[in-house]
Amino acid sequence: MFEQPQTPAGSKSILDVLFGRPLSSEEDAKEQIGPAAGIPVFGLDALSSAAYGPEAALTILIPLGVAGVAYIVPLSLTIIVLLTIVYFSYRQTIAAYPQGGGSYTVASENLGAGAGLLAGASLMLDYVLNVAVGISAGVGALVSAVPSLQPHTLTLCLAILLILTLINLRGVREAGVAFMVPTYLFVACLGGVIVSGLVKILLHGGHPLPAVPITSPAPAVSAVGLWLLVKAFASGCTAITGVEAVSNGVQAFGEPRVKNARATLTTIIATLILLLAGIAYLCRVYGVAATPPGEHGYQSVLSQLTAAVNGRGAFYFVTMTAVVTALALSANTSFADFPRLCRAIADKGYLPFPFTIRGRRLVFSFGVYVLAILAGLLLIVFKGVTDRLIPLFAVGAFTAFTLSQAGMVMHWKRTKGKGAHVSMIVNGVGALATGLTTCVVIVAKFVEGAWITALLIPGLILLMSSVHRHYEMILRETECPTPARLRGITPPVVVLPLQRWSRVAEKALRFAYTLSREVIVLHIVPEGDEQPKDALTSVWDEYVEMPAVQAGLAPPKLVLLRSPFRLVLTPIVEYVLQLENELPNRLVSVLVPELVERQWYYYLLHNQRATALKVILYVRGNGRIIVINVPWYLRS
Amino acid sequence: MFEQPQTPAGSKSILDVLFGRPLSSEEDAKEQIGPAAGIPVFGLDALSSAAYGPEAALTILIPLGVAGVAYIVPLSLTIIVLLTIVYFSYRQTIAAYPQGGGSYTVASENLGAGAGLLAGASLMLDYVLNVAVGISAGVGALVSAVPSLQPHTLTLCLAILLILTLINLRGVREAGVAFMVPTYLFVACLGGVIVSGLVKILLHGGHPLPAVPITSPAPAVSAVGLWLLVKAFASGCTAITGVEAVSNGVQAFGEPRVKNARATLTTIIATLILLLAGIAYLCRVYGVAATPPGEHGYQSVLSQLTAAVNGRGAFYFVTMTAVVTALALSANTSFADFPRLCRAIADKGYLPFPFTIRGRRLVFSFGVYVLAILAGLLLIVFKGVTDRLIPLFAVGAFTAFTLSQAGMVMHWKRTKGKGAHVSMIVNGVGALATGLTTCVVIVAKFVEGAWITALLIPGLILLMSSVHRHYEMILRETECPTPARLRGITPPVVVLPLQRWSRVAEKALRFAYTLSREVIVLHIVPEGDEQPKDALTSVWDEYVEMPAVQAGLAPPKLVLLRSPFRLVLTPIVEYVLQLENELPNRLVSVLVPELVERQWYYYLLHNQRATALKVILYVRGNGRIIVINVPWYLRS
Repeated sequence: MFEQPQTPAGSKSILDVLFGRPLSSEEDAKEQIGPAAGIPVFGLDALSSAAYGPEAALTILIPLGVAGVAYIVPLSLTIIVLLTIVYFSYRQTIAAYPQGGGSYTVASENLGAGAGLLAGASLMLDYVLNVAVGISAGVGALVSAVPSLQPHTLTLCLAILLILTLINLRGVREAGVAFMVPTYLFVACLGGVIVSGLVKILLHGGHPLPAVPITSPAPAVSAVGLWLLVKAFASGCTAITGVEAVSNGVQAFGEPRVKNARATLTTIIATLILLLAGIAYLCRVYGVAATPPGEHGYQSVLSQLTAAVNGRGAFYFVTMTAVVTALALSANTSFADFPRLCRAIADKGYLPFPFTIRGRRLVFSFGVYVLAILAGLLLIVFKGVTDRLIPLFAVGAFTAFTLSQAGMVMHWKRTKGKGAHVSMIVNGVGALATGLTTCVVIVAKFVEGAWITALLIPGLILLMSSVHRHYEMILRETECPTPARLRGITPPVVVLPLQRWSRVAEKALRFAYTLSREVIVLHIVPEGDEQPKDALTSVWDEYVEMPAVQAGLAPPKLVLLRSPFRLVLTPIVEYVLQLENELPNRLVSVLVPELVERQWYYYLLHNQRATALKVILYVRGNGRIIVINVPWYLRS
Repeated sequence: MFEQPQTPAGSKSILDVLFGRPLSSEEDAKEQIGPAAGIPVFGLDALSSAAYGPEAALTILIPLGVAGVAYIVPLSLTIIVLLTIVYFSYRQTIAAYPQGGGSYTVASENLGAGAGLLAGASLMLDYVLNVAVGISAGVGALVSAVPSLQPHTLTLCLAILLILTLINLRGVREAGVAFMVPTYLFVACLGGVIVSGLVKILLHGGHPLPAVPITSPAPAVSAVGLWLLVKAFASGCTAITGVEAVSNGVQAFGEPRVKNARATLTTIIATLILLLAGIAYLCRVYGVAATPPGEHGYQSVLSQLTAAVNGRGAFYFVTMTAVVTALALSANTSFADFPRLCRAIADKGYLPFPFTIRGRRLVFSFGVYVLAILAGLLLIVFKGVTDRLIPLFAVGAFTAFTLSQAGMVMHWKRTKGKGAHVSMIVNGVGALATGLTTCVVIVAKFVEGAWITALLIPGLILLMSSVHRHYEMILRETECPTPARLRGITPPVVVLPLQRWSRVAEKALRFAYTLSREVIVLHIVPEGDEQPKDALTSVWDEYVEMPAVQAGLAPPKLVLLRSPFRLVLTPIVEYVLQLENELPNRLVSVLVPELVERQWYYYLLHNQRATALKVILYVRGNGRIIVINVPWYLRS
């Protein structure tokens, strides 16, 4: 039941408390936002990447020991250059798609349905991974601040996932304010760390003393090599994920829409660059290396850095709180985007129809469930350790980037307006850079986990195509370009299985006679019981046959079925299938009396034979059987 | 679907491979067994208690350090005395109930339904706990032999549970042989340890050297006190669980039935006494104490003892294998008993009806599922550590013992035959001893976990009574001691919601006219769409109205429903409920076209609106609504 205008009595209040009262469509009014609100809503995802991107690169450098830390600066600069290219590319998408140009839209419109599906699949995976990485990185920050929580990493991850899921099933209308404070606090705290770190570096002539002793990196176990640096770059690229959010949501901005959106994007990217550069430089000067992830004694890089610059005082705990909150909320952005993307794909028939149904709170609940389950599986499989998720992460994001930029190249090629040529080159460079990075990431991280993404994306595409094919087939098969054939309609033969005479049986019998004058009652008799005189046969003449004759109806035909097996269903199924075969032009209606209980849990007290009977008859029959449940309402 | 004579195409082979082909009732032939086969089948549960009973007592004595080990001998002697009393008591039950005298039967027949329910609830809990304790103790033995597996304790427990569940869903016809080898191997190995230990003690004048160094007990942290000894006794009493099995299964023995059953019981109890006494004495002489359970470095008492006596050679590993197998199989006995007990209770209407249905393989599958789920929950909550489960365990078993003996007292009081007086005294002593032990166990272990059992048992009884009340209510409400009223049957009004014209719609319309001449078609129109010309309304005149007129039928009434909400169901529900109110003496049939897919997973592609509509109409209506799904069969 995906849609629930009114819940059955008894369960109403709990649902309302958990999820809030149902909302009507009219309450879906759009808010028009400016850059100040736009930065938190669309920027949190990108900005919070600063909390795991540099760390992901440093983790790869662990085998180099203390020497590895030095490489973080050139690596971060490379990533910043890439980020700048991507920035200019997306500036143009914003102008070209003021109604919102997500990768799926841009790729579908400009590169065709195939590319659209590739972009869609990549994005779907990316959103799922964003939830898992955001939560696991948040918990990573939490256990850095409170090390005694480390053994409970996975439990904490799943708890946060559950909370986010419940919040999002309630709907996220108040998201604006909820995002603003944590985002600005996150930027302010990291900015504070960087600025005070820079001041201390200046004051101490480039060699500041850490406020608390720094965990010294493990001794080097390997020499530096190009391969290691490429892998570190590939991991660090996760810092770029999330920058496409503004271009997806241009329509949310107030007028002048494009200008506001571009100003927002510029601010976000500039801030992200400053954060990445600052973190890299401070890590180098303070000698902060990554600690082995997922083990006892794990300390996130940001935690070490904050403690080294300002000590483990109040500021440390405020900063870590901001980091945890920002990361958890960045996971939350996927909860808005994933269901919307799935809905767009499902609207075109490539994903199951339930993705398009809005639930009680105007949320595409089905998408929320699917996202929560997939992210939960990822967290469980990878035990909530960010480092193990990173290799899967960037592939989807960069594939979508590449397709989006490539789509823009085709867009400009078609447009041919003033400046289209320059724009084409800008997006072309973007496509090239991100395409190259995608290849680098896949190759560098293939063994560590990118192969999973590389398998899942085509798998998803295959799945979506076959869903589409199935819907097309149904449409073709049920098309009816002709008038209804309503002449010569004959009533069905009615089959009614009964074991004992009761008011339920009486109601079913009366309904049987509204359907047809030909009623067959089936009665199961245990093998060997030659002259059955049981709860039905003993009253048959008096309670059934005579009243029928008196009412001028042909009395029902009583058929006794022997059952050598313990199964009740088999003889009924065999009889009905045979009857269907013998009457090639008639419908066979099977009436099954059914108790209607007022509380769902009472259904546990009954067997599901009626359902089983229906499934079996429909699967094995020739299309002329209709199983009808005749409800009997219990009063209490 | 609890009963499945024929599975839908596609899933058949997998089920058959996993669970075996379906069996007919006739294959349920009883085997008649003698004492040699009876000891494994009915004795394994009791005998394997020797593997955790003494250890449970020793674990309580850990705080006493090395001094605690000495107390195991008097404690074990007390337990052996209790066991002897129980033995004589059950000897009499065997004679009095040669058709099988389980606690539930004896208590129901002699003490009334209430006592029967108490015994039933106690036994049900006891069976669930027996599974959990058997498996966890088996895994405890396994990780003692292979310490590197210790961190995976819970995973191993759940894996064994899964295997047992699958085996039992297949049915356990070959159980006899499967039990014989492990049981005799278990007894032989433990006997071997005890005998060789005794020989070494004799040879070394009472001070044998351990073959491998013994983990020295932690230093004493408390002095001995009565309370601690009582708790150790309460834990050790778990060694007595399982001895009721023979009296439950007397009918399985060949003639002379009572004599065979008694001989079996005698052998089992005598063996168990020798094992308990031997283990206690050896522990004392060798100074084997329990190790803290659930922690790294855990070693079961039997593992330490075997290693101390004979070293960690081949014999050690054979013994540990026998212990693991015996414990896992002792868990398996609950898989036979629990579903059978639930069936007996469900037959009297105190548990849901599905417990009485035999599945494909003549197994009461529902009981197996419930047992597996409950035992799995216990294992997860208590992390697969035997010591944490022990406090919950003995309460149920001893309550059932007490009720069974007390029932026998009443039995003899009624019988008044020759020797009835003596028998009454024997059973009275048994009832007194086990009743007293029940109280001791509840009090001594209350805080550690017995409170859970003490809450669950009355909870279960309440549940069973309310199930019974509900069934009685249904029976009363549906009773129909009058002939069928078949005069003046009027056809229903038919309501058919349609969104587009298709072959599915056409079939539903034709079926509607077999039901009644009054057909109302409901069509949802989005709010504001004043002159709808959509997939249905644009073809209405040509495809629906005209053919109806030509066929001489009243054309269907087309009702357009405006929907201000995104919900499609609400307007339909409101309309149908209003219609039902306006026509106080008519049935309202709602036809819902339904696609019949050939593979179950295609159902994920469709929404469940039909189901939702049915539930809502049945819950909110006044009992005159019948929802009929008209199936449309997809050919491919």
